[in-house]
Amino acid sequence: MNKEEIKNLLESVKNNEINIDKAMKIIEDLPYKELGFAKIDNHREIRVGYPEVIYCEGKTAEQVVKIVEFMLTKNNNILATRATQEMYEEVKKICPESNYNPLGRTITIRKRDEKVTDSYIAIVSAGTSDLPVVEEAAETAMIFGNRVEKITDVGVAGIHRLFESLNVIRGARVVIVIAGMEGALASVVGGLIDKPLIAVPTSVGYGASFRGLAALLTMLNSCASGVTVVNIDNGFGAAYSASIINKL
Amino acid sequence: MNKEEIKNLLESVKNNEINIDKAMKIIEDLPYKELGFAKIDNHREIRVGYPEVIYCEGKTAEQVVKIVEFMLTKNNNILATRATQEMYEEVKKICPESNYNPLGRTITIRKRDEKVTDSYIAIVSAGTSDLPVVEEAAETAMIFGNRVEKITDVGVAGIHRLFESLNVIRGARVVIVIAGMEGALASVVGGLIDKPLIAVPTSVGYGASFRGLAALLTMLNSCASGVTVVNIDNGFGAAYSASIINKL
Amino acid sequence: MNKEEIKNLLESVKNNEINIDKAMKIIEDLPYKELGFAKIDNHREIRVGYPEVIYCEGKTAEQVVKIVEFMLTKNNNILATRATQEMYEEVKKICPESNYNPLGRTITIRKRDEKVTDSYIAIVSAGTSDLPVVEEAAETAMIFGNRVEKITDVGVAGIHRLFESLNVIRGARVVIVIAGMEGALASVVGGLIDKPLIAVPTSVGYGASFRGLAALLTMLNSCASGVTVVNIDNGFGAAYSASIINKL
Amino acid sequence: MNKEEIKNLLESVKNNEINIDKAMKIIEDLPYKELGFAKIDNHREIRVGYPEVIYCEGKTAEQVVKIVEFMLTKNNNILATRATQEMYEEVKKICPESNYNPLGRTITIRKRDEKVTDSYIAIVSAGTSDLPVVEEAAETAMIFGNRVEKITDVGVAGIHRLFESLNVIRGARVVIVIAGMEGALASVVGGLIDKPLIAVPTSVGYGASFRGLAALLTMLNSCASGVTVVNIDNGFGAAYSASIINKL
Amino acid sequence: MNKEEIKNLLESVKNNEINIDKAMKIIEDLPYKELGFAKIDNHREIRVGYPEVIYCEGKTAEQVVKIVEFMLTKNNNILATRATQEMYEEVKKICPESNYNPLGRTITIRKRDEKVTDSYIAIVSAGTSDLPVVEEAAETAMIFGNRVEKITDVGVAGIHRLFESLNVIRGARVVIVIAGMEGALASVVGGLIDKPLIAVPTSVGYGASFRGLAALLTMLNSCASGVTVVNIDNGFGAAYSASIINKL
Amino acid sequence: MNKEEIKNLLESVKNNEINIDKAMKIIEDLPYKELGFAKIDNHREIRVGYPEVIYCEGKTAEQVVKIVEFMLTKNNNILATRATQEMYEEVKKICPESNYNPLGRTITIRKRDEKVTDSYIAIVSAGTSDLPVVEEAAETAMIFGNRVEKITDVGVAGIHRLFESLNVIRGARVVIVIAGMEGALASVVGGLIDKPLIAVPTSVGYGASFRGLAALLTMLNSCASGVTVVNIDNGFGAAYSASIINKL
Amino acid sequence: MNKEEIKNLLESVKNNEINIDKAMKIIEDLPYKELGFAKIDNHREIRVGYPEVIYCEGKTAEQVVKIVEFMLTKNNNILATRATQEMYEEVKKICPESNYNPLGRTITIRKRDEKVTDSYIAIVSAGTSDLPVVEEAAETAMIFGNRVEKITDVGVAGIHRLFESLNVIRGARVVIVIAGMEGALASVVGGLIDKPLIAVPTSVGYGASFRGLAALLTMLNSCASGVTVVNIDNGFGAAYSASIINKL
Amino acid sequence: MNKEEIKNLLESVKNNEINIDKAMKIIEDLPYKELGFAKIDNHREIRVGYPEVIYCEGKTAEQVVKIVEFMLTKNNNILATRATQEMYEEVKKICPESNYNPLGRTITIRKRDEKVTDSYIAIVSAGTSDLPVVEEAAETAMIFGNRVEKITDVGVAGIHRLFESLNVIRGARVVIVIAGMEGALASVVGGLIDKPLIAVPTSVGYGASFRGLAALLTMLNSCASGVTVVNIDNGFGAAYSASIINKL
Repeated sequence: MNKEEIKNLLESVKNNEINIDKAMKIIEDLPYKELGFAKIDNHREIRVGYPEVIYCEGKTAEQVVKIVEFMLTKNNNILATRATQEMYEEVKKICPESNYNPLGRTITIRKRDEKVTDSYIAIVSAGTSDLPVVEEAAETAMIFGNRVEKITDVGVAGIHRLFESLNVIRGARVVIVIAGMEGALASVVGGLIDKPLIAVPTSVGYGASFRGLAALLTMLNSCASGVTVVNIDNGFGAAYSASIINKL
Repeated sequence: MNKEEIKNLLESVKNNEINIDKAMKIIEDLPYKELGFAKIDNHREIRVGYPEVIYCEGKTAEQVVKIVEFMLTKNNNILATRATQEMYEEVKKICPESNYNPLGRTITIRKRDEKVTDSYIAIVSAGTSDLPVVEEAAETAMIFGNRVEKITDVGVAGIHRLFESLNVIRGARVVIVIAGMEGALASVVGGLIDKPLIAVPTSVGYGASFRGLAALLTMLNSCASGVTVVNIDNGFGAAYSASIINKL
Repeated sequence: MNKEEIKNLLESVKNNEINIDKAMKIIEDLPYKELGFAKIDNHREIRVGYPEVIYCEGKTAEQVVKIVEFMLTKNNNILATRATQEMYEEVKKICPESNYNPLGRTITIRKRDEKVTDSYIAIVSAGTSDLPVVEEAAETAMIFGNRVEKITDVGVAGIHRLFESLNVIRGARVVIVIAGMEGALASVVGGLIDKPLIAVPTSVGYGASFRGLAALLTMLNSCASGVTVVNIDNGFGAAYSASIINKL
Repeated sequence: MNKEEIKNLLESVKNNEINIDKAMKIIEDLPYKELGFAKIDNHREIRVGYPEVIYCEGKTAEQVVKIVEFMLTKNNNILATRATQEMYEEVKKICPESNYNPLGRTITIRKRDEKVTDSYIAIVSAGTSDLPVVEEAAETAMIFGNRVEKITDVGVAGIHRLFESLNVIRGARVVIVIAGMEGALASVVGGLIDKPLIAVPTSVGYGASFRGLAALLTMLNSCASGVTVVNIDNGFGAAYSASIINKL
Repeated sequence: MNKEEIKNLLESVKNNEINIDKAMKIIEDLPYKELGFAKIDNHREIRVGYPEVIYCEGKTAEQVVKIVEFMLTKNNNILATRATQEMYEEVKKICPESNYNPLGRTITIRKRDEKVTDSYIAIVSAGTSDLPVVEEAAETAMIFGNRVEKITDVGVAGIHRLFESLNVIRGARVVIVIAGMEGALASVVGGLIDKPLIAVPTSVGYGASFRGLAALLTMLNSCASGVTVVNIDNGFGAAYSASIINKL
Repeated sequence: MNKEEIKNLLESVKNNEINIDKAMKIIEDLPYKELGFAKIDNHREIRVGYPEVIYCEGKTAEQVVKIVEFMLTKNNNILATRATQEMYEEVKKICPESNYNPLGRTITIRKRDEKVTDSYIAIVSAGTSDLPVVEEAAETAMIFGNRVEKITDVGVAGIHRLFESLNVIRGARVVIVIAGMEGALASVVGGLIDKPLIAVPTSVGYGASFRGLAALLTMLNSCASGVTVVNIDNGFGAAYSASIINKL
Repeated sequence: MNKEEIKNLLESVKNNEINIDKAMKIIEDLPYKELGFAKIDNHREIRVGYPEVIYCEGKTAEQVVKIVEFMLTKNNNILATRATQEMYEEVKKICPESNYNPLGRTITIRKRDEKVTDSYIAIVSAGTSDLPVVEEAAETAMIFGNRVEKITDVGVAGIHRLFESLNVIRGARVVIVIAGMEGALASVVGGLIDKPLIAVPTSVGYGASFRGLAALLTMLNSCASGVTVVNIDNGFGAAYSASIINKL
Repeated sequence: MNKEEIKNLLESVKNNEINIDKAMKIIEDLPYKELGFAKIDNHREIRVGYPEVIYCEGKTAEQVVKIVEFMLTKNNNILATRATQEMYEEVKKICPESNYNPLGRTITIRKRDEKVTDSYIAIVSAGTSDLPVVEEAAETAMIFGNRVEKITDVGVAGIHRLFESLNVIRGARVVIVIAGMEGALASVVGGLIDKPLIAVPTSVGYGASFRGLAALLTMLNSCASGVTVVNIDNGFGAAYSASIINKL
């Protein structure tokens, strides 16, 4: 409700075109509707072109289907992360055009064609065991409308492979680096680029990797500036942030 | 602005007793004034009889004095926690009636007489090294207007001393248990009473006490029901919560 | 045995109405019966209207049935927490009126009608994955005779939803806040109310949530006063404490 | 050295315009000069307008002065972080136009006027104890040529203050959130904006804050998407990343 | 071989009563036989009446049977800890007189009658979930020839039950206290007795019990003197130490 | 108050030799006086020959003096641990016969001659930096009336030195092993003896020793049976337990 | 391409023996071929006699087969670590001469006969549960062409067994020590030899072993010089390093 | 003493060429001299050319002087690590030719000229704050008779600097990599060489570096094979191991 509308309301009151009780009701609702609340409420959900997101971990296939069903009524694209094959089978029954990425464990449903960005997000990863997180990040970035370039298996133990892809990495607008074990890749890439770098530690490793803690600490302590970090295995979060930056 | 006032405003508009621009202004401000914001703003500060609180850790004596100076204009009682002797010397210069509890490291200033509750908060502690936290809790509880009973040095290694004070503890409306080292006192007291018990682990100990972590974990895992826990050494927080409960 | 009764006993001795051996016997038992031991023994169990509680984790269905069987002889209400569907099936065989809450994993048996409090406990939670803890807390609070209001799915990432329920939360006598991941909800709610707040971290999350440790630390360090904390996923403990406070 | 230049060189060899030894020298250097090495070498340092940065922790005042002295020859702006008052006194002797921010512990020297961005970085912080990190971030952002808006003391315990500044925060191109204790502010702000948010946990707190670990975990587990995290107290790193993003 | 014997040997050599090769053999063996090595070798295994012990964790039923088979040749009593039902079934085939304690997960085989001590080891435990560790400790203590008194389910939340058993506990020569969750029982018992107390933390609990860490820290920090601690769930180790002490 | 006395009391009542009020008073006090409480109260303090103990950490010299002063009235021997040189100077003023062990930081006052045990406690330590804990343990053991043999500087890196002292170690009734860094000495000694072994981890070390945590974990996981553990640097606790065992 | 060759190339250009485009092509490739990149690329893989290595953890049997299939084309020996029985069954189908070590979980394929070193690597281990890591290390060392001597089950709890094998251990060129639980063996062996010692903590143990953390810390803090450490259970890594040293 | 020598001895006894007492003495010493004990005893200390080492941490200047004084009698070279300037001043008084490295905190005394190895140890480090550990390692390596090449300030954030020194690093026989913060340098160097690499994490960093823990975990999880690790800041240990390897 903007200034003009409030003015009109008051003039209607003055002119007896609306009775006081009804006007009172409208005004009482203002705080919830106006003070950023409508904006808050909607700033993620109503925003045109933003996909709906479901985090499937800990949900049953049945629950996921119900949520998808509801979302389909809104005509947005849909992304489900941490989804099992079984969930996908169920979702496909109500939405045959849905796709499943078994490595990234994502279900994607494209109800409308989003314009894809010209600039791209580079997703750089260390080892083959990091690929599930790479795929989660890539699917997320793509359904949010970003061009994506994947540079995988360029761990620091064979650094020449990284150098061969340096131009692609440097050409990105935002770079996501995904690495488990000791997570050193983030620092090395961070030292070679001057773009925003979002580092994703993965739980890949054993023993003193403590399920990703080692990689997480490595990345938080990166001696290369320009590196920020998300939670262990959080490919979605990294891609979400990268998408916001890429579309600035 | 309550319903009545909104109705009056609209009637004034209707009756031309107020012009539309002015009414519009008032209505525009509603979200900030009505939707709990005024309440939010004031729910701690304006509430009659609540003391002002300063957490002095990391502040200079000069900064503390300035804050006290400002607070004194509001005519409330004042509590400064984690205050050094030096801070007190400075505060005393601008407020000679201020008091210092060197053990509890609190400065208290009583600008008005608060009614003290009939029901009391029992503060039970294990060893003499826990006394600073006891004193912080006691000073806090008292300036918030609560009657306080202290039962100190009743650690579980000499449990008969605890039993001798059982009646006093059981007579309280809320019980605060303060203990370092292994913090077992909270469980023992928790098993003997049926009142709310707030446990405060202290950083007293060495080696595997890890600066209060051992006592904290003990209390969180208490096998006695009815025990809730605050941060290590947080005598203020325990007393604040206890005060809210005591005054329900 | 109160003062009056001791006096009577001694007078009976004096008047030869009881022989010395018998009186001696009674007096010898005093320490166990009088020194709080009877009280201790009974202060939880005999107290009228308190339900019996079974913590089922690590017990077999068979063991749970046996305990329930014994408890049923005492004519109290019964609450079994962390109970599996299988346990419930077995319990139902000996007590058809038992109820199972599959989300909260509780079995409840109501043998007598408890008066429900007028004041209520608000149970506020962040995400859908926190619901099992919400349900455990709600079932506990209810069988202890408390009115309960649940306000779920009001995580801080969409804070407007929290504001819409603010009046319900503020109307409670005690508030339980249940949240996993980063657990920030406790601090936000704590800053908006002036009632006792019991925070329950949940093990919901992944990676650096370290099975609830992140939420636990968040809540212990809450910058909002009046927050106390229980163990990770301990919905029962929070509701037990809340019930004691609500009934003060 | 691009393809054209290599071709020209070879033609010069063929045409005897350059002798073979000289050509050989040029070619031998190619690996170092061409394969990104010149670029690598210079991508941070030669880039026009980037300030030189000194991390002073663990250096003596004498060492800092020597580094500054050398940097001054390059005619760049200079930023020294974690600098003591004593270091500043020494630096001032050789460079009187240097400035010291005692709260942020930064020395800044402006040798050339950088164009300041129109878009701004919002730096949002929770409590007064977080101000040193705020100042380090602000000084960094400014000497890298960014417009900065500071919104301080808007911790979640008094969330209305945050709302009053919401428009300023939402107007930023990048948001830095700085908070100690439980660090919940990052999640709350993250839920209210759709801009990149860089969260900085601070070591402010005591007991179970474990010198910033609690806030760090909170931020890594943020339920609000779009949040990335840097090391504890790393105001410089957050501002460096924010600057890169702001200038994309 | 003492000095005298060496002298005799050399004299025999001198007097041709022993040939040089035989003398050489004896002397060559000296290092292994004399320097405590024979003693070392045998101090546990040859000692009459000490049972053989097998730690079954991580072994197959087949491996356990083979070890038992070998041990049976030595005519000692045998104790197998952390043994599964399946292992027992296999062992029984080759040794029908073997016994299995399913709760304590021990197999015991008695080949000879050991004299049982007059003095006893008291095994005190907190909750029913601690019983497996109690049984492991009890079986160990008994097969090592100790009289054992078990006092179970005397957790500190109902401390009167502990007091009712105080005489039995105080009558022991050594006391083992077994408790999970917060492990406070060790401190309470420690304060009530003046006998050696060996505390066993158990992994019973959830959330912030961190699989026994909380109880372990509690016991290490016990404010009661005379308490020593073994590894989490190490009922065997506690009983082994207690047995050594009981037989001093 | 034994049976006889109760009988006498009742007979006095019957015979009017005592009035009912007075008898009632005596009976009311029974629970506190009889049910083990006197025993509890006194079991440590009144026991003839037990020294009084003061833990000086966190106390002022003034406080220590006051406590000593009070203890001197009881005519017991006195042990003060973690005492500074300054504390000793003050104590000496009121008790010239007090002794100070600057390495072990103990003050000892011998008011009566205790009989020393024939059997001895062996205190075995790894490196010279462990000596303060050795001395604390030795002083404690001696003032509790135990013969002590110290075998120092026999760390596992030069294991032959340990073997040279093996006979002395094996001759002890109880063995205390004190080691920092990796704490391996406890396992090695544990494998060589069949006496109770109390292991004391020390905070000696750096880096990944984490102030004694490494040694603590080593000792708790000792593959040698018969090893129990006390808190880091807790020489007093080890000696106290050893003394109880030695005197069994 | 060395200096001589570059010179020859340029002279060919000058002499028209090679056309400029072809020369240009060669020079363009230089950075990748010369600056260590070819060397980098090949330093592990092309090196004659080095086996190919596959880390199977987290791979499917199908993926492992594919990688082996590709590797077989290169005619090198092949080592697959952390391989399951199922993987081996599949590999055997395409390569019947492959061998499986079920304890060490390794598949080895010998395509060419490597010369075995004269000097040997001693692999010393504590308990039977450490054997899987021993086998992984042994298989690795052997397929890298090293002679191996295994000395197993010589844990410090029975140190005489270690002494009996001392000569074999001392005769090695490099020693690998593998131990779980408290990991003390590394320190003891370290003190007895003057050869490089690589320590491998294993995850063998329970409770406070924290899945190998205790042994890891022990080894990092070893008081014996000359000890270096690899990740928990990393038998491969230890043998790889030992092989490099053995072949120096 | 080998078999031949024992035989000869016995024959001498038989032939009266040696008297029995003397022969007895020789034989009595056998256990200590033969069973490795003499070797053990001497394997570090008597070995010609090995310097004596003093770890000064926690020692007084006076104690260090006394130890040096004793060592000087043995005519070996001497190395004192973690030595303060004050210690050096005192040592210099009794040994004017001693040298102090203030950065590495080492005192070195050269009593005899050791032959320096032809092969060298490369010491590679990340940042200037790591230099103290570099210097400790270098001084250690040198006094043990190794040629040393230092390549400092080649952290991964500017990886081209590392490449410029690659030939020097690859030319070494053993490489020590020293790095704090995230410690990624070890992995990068490990991937570029095929020599033994000893990684030293340093305590350089702040916040989530947790005093070197982050770098330690990074190095333990290195994805590059051939990396072994020593304790945080343990430059001495790394150089000691490197020296053993270099001299194989």
